[in-house]
Amino acid sequence: MSRLVLKFGGTSVGSLERIEAVAEQVMALRSLGHQLVVVVSAMAGETNRLVEMAYRLSATPNPRELDMLMATGEQVSMSLLATVLSARGCPARSFTGGQAGIVTSSVHGGAMIENIDTAALEANLAEGAVAIVAGFQGCDAMGEITTLGRGGSDYTAVALAAALAADECQIFTDVDGVYSADPRIVPSAVRHDCIRFTDMLAMAEHGAKVLQYQSVHSAYELNVPLRVLSSFTAGHSTLVTFDHLCPVKPIAGLAGVAQLLITIPSKYLIEFRTNLTELNLQFQLLQEQADDVTLIVCDSDEGKIPLELKQRIRHIIKVFTLSIVGQSAETIRHHAIEALSLQGIAVHQYSLADSRLSLTVDSDDYPQAATLLHEKFVVCDEFIDNAPLLAVS
Amino acid sequence: MSRLVLKFGGTSVGSLERIEAVAEQVMALRSLGHQLVVVVSAMAGETNRLVEMAYRLSATPNPRELDMLMATGEQVSMSLLATVLSARGCPARSFTGGQAGIVTSSVHGGAMIENIDTAALEANLAEGAVAIVAGFQGCDAMGEITTLGRGGSDYTAVALAAALAADECQIFTDVDGVYSADPRIVPSAVRHDCIRFTDMLAMAEHGAKVLQYQSVHSAYELNVPLRVLSSFTAGHSTLVTFDHLCPVKPIAGLAGVAQLLITIPSKYLIEFRTNLTELNLQFQLLQEQADDVTLIVCDSDEGKIPLELKQRIRHIIKVFTLSIVGQSAETIRHHAIEALSLQGIAVHQYSLADSRLSLTVDSDDYPQAATLLHEKFVVCDEFIDNAPLLAVS
Repeated sequence: MSRLVLKFGGTSVGSLERIEAVAEQVMALRSLGHQLVVVVSAMAGETNRLVEMAYRLSATPNPRELDMLMATGEQVSMSLLATVLSARGCPARSFTGGQAGIVTSSVHGGAMIENIDTAALEANLAEGAVAIVAGFQGCDAMGEITTLGRGGSDYTAVALAAALAADECQIFTDVDGVYSADPRIVPSAVRHDCIRFTDMLAMAEHGAKVLQYQSVHSAYELNVPLRVLSSFTAGHSTLVTFDHLCPVKPIAGLAGVAQLLITIPSKYLIEFRTNLTELNLQFQLLQEQADDVTLIVCDSDEGKIPLELKQRIRHIIKVFTLSIVGQSAETIRHHAIEALSLQGIAVHQYSLADSRLSLTVDSDDYPQAATLLHEKFVVCDEFIDNAPLLAVS
Repeated sequence: MSRLVLKFGGTSVGSLERIEAVAEQVMALRSLGHQLVVVVSAMAGETNRLVEMAYRLSATPNPRELDMLMATGEQVSMSLLATVLSARGCPARSFTGGQAGIVTSSVHGGAMIENIDTAALEANLAEGAVAIVAGFQGCDAMGEITTLGRGGSDYTAVALAAALAADECQIFTDVDGVYSADPRIVPSAVRHDCIRFTDMLAMAEHGAKVLQYQSVHSAYELNVPLRVLSSFTAGHSTLVTFDHLCPVKPIAGLAGVAQLLITIPSKYLIEFRTNLTELNLQFQLLQEQADDVTLIVCDSDEGKIPLELKQRIRHIIKVFTLSIVGQSAETIRHHAIEALSLQGIAVHQYSLADSRLSLTVDSDDYPQAATLLHEKFVVCDEFIDNAPLLAVS
């Protein structure tokens, strides 16, 4: 018998039929004798629906009230799941974040979990009942409802798994594991049975969407093994675990993130830098050339750049930064750039870090570049281990 | 400066535009210097939407989980109202039932308010902020979320008004007060500026929909004056107050309730009586005639009568029981029956009680009978006070 924390995201509980399917999965695991805590997100689209109402009423909704509003999304899905389980004879009880004992900081919209009083959940598990917990939310020390920010339900699941000393934290999503690249872009991507935390952290940090960086980082810090499974198809999964427990792969995978290359006259650099820093926008200074300077910002931040700064921009290029992650990543830099250039794909910049090689290409070149790099360097372990590096072309 | 508890029902907060209109009304009252606690229902249709989801998942949803689910409806509307007020510079803060200190019994779906710890609300009012409270909900002593049953938001408002020693509890609805009859049926119905609790209780008990009997009764017991106002049009209102504070009207009004006259063979009476009692259905034994017996049940209970009992029924007639309420109600019995019969309207039965005359007519005759009785006896105070009774025809 294991103690498991399961987490089902918004798509997994996106309709009443999906909630019934989740109930089946929960009951199947319970019938194996496992103790279960189930963390649920809001039904897909519900958080957006709520947030849109608030933004129609105010351009800058009061953060406390926004949390009060958003927290209802998970409360609906948790009570519906508990309703199905009860109706099918499986003892189950839902808990809001506050009722589950999740105490957070008081930062509305981005609270951190400070403490979990597991008494109520432990009592529930001792009775043999499944505990359903609203993800993404908690209460601060004053009893105010807080939310945990993006990826918050994964964070809830990881923190609960640590506090309850669970054997695994299982993240149910719409894919059946962690792949060596995004399968929608790179059809030859392969699923890992096991991936080391070090590699998973790098993948998540550089664009892999299957797991959020913060929750992987929390799991790593809190010593919680993560398993990624599909809530739609049973069978496969990927275990994210500690490095000494997982065989080394020279290259673990390829992740990509959409960015913008912004070129401005050098004289505006200070103004730009000050403004972006004040707005808390991540940016990276790329190069100075003649009187121009080039910066990289995240594609999704485009709308946040103030109009007066936009007027300074000389030109913008949409790019993708592809990151090859794994112990051998640094060794293939020359080969990777050469392979891309042979296909006529220009590399705007590259960067090397501990077990990672990142290459920035035009947005239009992204699928071809990703597929090429994946086939040459990710699924070709033999090459990296055995073949002389110069043989690559 | 007064301290007021305002209550806005589902239609009053039924859209974002309506919530903005409510915010305007709240701010107008605040600008007069009043201390305000605002109780809100769920947006119109929202509770039904939630409950329907639960019933699609289970024929008998777990009552605890149903409360957990339904409670989100008011949490949404309260946070949206607080969002608008904050955005417009009016300090405001929303409170779930539990956060407002409302402690209830543990009866899910029909909890009673046992105690209100007003500390959080008092602190909020002392800061000069408007308190927005989710109606219809509370927490039991164990912190479990409960709901208060039908009319629950009015009940919340009345109980808060009592606990906070408010000067008035103002119920905002879709009509601008209490009328002498339902204006949709009786166009000549007139609005009262003031109505005595005794009359209002009788009106609510016998079919007036403007206020729920339970909340009027609570207000009466808790010494809370009620005011009924429109959330759509400003200006008029009705104050429901203690008898010594309101001028006597010989006849205060006319209310009607849809019922069924059910005739069964006498030999099935015991079976019927036992079954209806077990099902907690209200019924009234009307008459025995030859081998038959006639009962009255509420029209809305028709679906709850078990099939095996329905097969025993000889015939069913849809009727309305009209109740004339007021100190002089008993004195007009003969005139009322005579007036109806002169118009060819049969009275199936009548009953007299303290300050009330009830007459049961065919459903088809209801609008004509109501208008006739209203014109002859309700808006004609002069007649009752001055004219000899026999002059009526």
